[in-house]
Amino acid sequence: MEQKSIPDIVVGRLPIYLRALQRMAEDNQRLTSSQELSERLGISAAQIRKDLSQFGEFGKQGTGYNIEFLVDQLRQILKVNRVWDIAVIGAGDIGSAVARYQGFSNRGFRVTMIFDIDPGKIGTHVGPFVVQDYATMSGAISEASIRVAMVAVPAMSAQRVAEDLVKAGIKAILNYAPININVPEGIYVQHTDPVTHLQRMTYYLE
Amino acid sequence: MEQKSIPDIVVGRLPIYLRALQRMAEDNQRLTSSQELSERLGISAAQIRKDLSQFGEFGKQGTGYNIEFLVDQLRQILKVNRVWDIAVIGAGDIGSAVARYQGFSNRGFRVTMIFDIDPGKIGTHVGPFVVQDYATMSGAISEASIRVAMVAVPAMSAQRVAEDLVKAGIKAILNYAPININVPEGIYVQHTDPVTHLQRMTYYLE
Repeated sequence: MEQKSIPDIVVGRLPIYLRALQRMAEDNQRLTSSQELSERLGISAAQIRKDLSQFGEFGKQGTGYNIEFLVDQLRQILKVNRVWDIAVIGAGDIGSAVARYQGFSNRGFRVTMIFDIDPGKIGTHVGPFVVQDYATMSGAISEASIRVAMVAVPAMSAQRVAEDLVKAGIKAILNYAPININVPEGIYVQHTDPVTHLQRMTYYLE
Repeated sequence: MEQKSIPDIVVGRLPIYLRALQRMAEDNQRLTSSQELSERLGISAAQIRKDLSQFGEFGKQGTGYNIEFLVDQLRQILKVNRVWDIAVIGAGDIGSAVARYQGFSNRGFRVTMIFDIDPGKIGTHVGPFVVQDYATMSGAISEASIRVAMVAVPAMSAQRVAEDLVKAGIKAILNYAPININVPEGIYVQHTDPVTHLQRMTYYLE
């Protein structure tokens, strides 16, 4: 199933398809179609068929897609047919909320540790976790071979934290700090910031 | 400054440029260049010049961009040269964290109310807000002429909440629930889900 040169924008739609398909599976639905997915997701049926066809032949003309099979395939393609442990950096409001987030289960991820630099937070509980000292982060991440981190620290600290994470072996960073962070080639970053999302919509408002 | 037919993907990059430029302005920087923005953002300088040129002539060959002027222009274009009030729906971990989020100020938004359906949460405090009864939401939003909402409710409730919000006059919804929601034409939705971000990165990992 290894493929080269799939555009990242196509890769970015696969998790959206997977999420919708997993929800259908939870509702005990067995079959779907590009038309039904299109109505749920607001993406054209032609685009959905084209995206999926880049990875193989998943549907049959006239009968549509077998949901369980397509879920399995997408989980393999996205490498979430396993569970990735996550380290959360920053035990403020956002870091604590994502550490306690219930939505990771059955989707390929679980938080296993959370760190902060604030002596007032170290040792306190966040959900089932004890906040660990940032000074011990690199060792703990290396030892546990963690590859995925979520960064929820102030903007001014985010770049330094990212550099420490990369040195510790992290390959994928979801950054909640409202600043762009730069990482070496072969390391992946996604940024999430409510304000950039909101501004993208206010552009269209009167 | 009204423009037609700017691709949404270009619109989506403007908040990223604005965020970087505002940060430079906070550091008392006066001028920048597409090259410097490119290095900060990992977007090519040619792309940045092309994106900005769709909205006007902002830079001079050889002297670059005046940061204060470009910030003003981008704030106008994105309609954040004003402050949009936000209603937050859902006072769980995520809703509470975004309601308390300090990163809205000076970026065009402020949270002004938060609602929940849980009698155990109604009347409690989230930061400076008292959680209001979901039953009173439509009236409160209409009366205050609020146009922007953030939805942080369980997936199974998100579509119904979105429909209630649209009826109350909301035009832009940032959805934290891990499910796609459908809205009528002329209403805007952005989805944010840590798992879809993470899966987009694990695709590339070994």
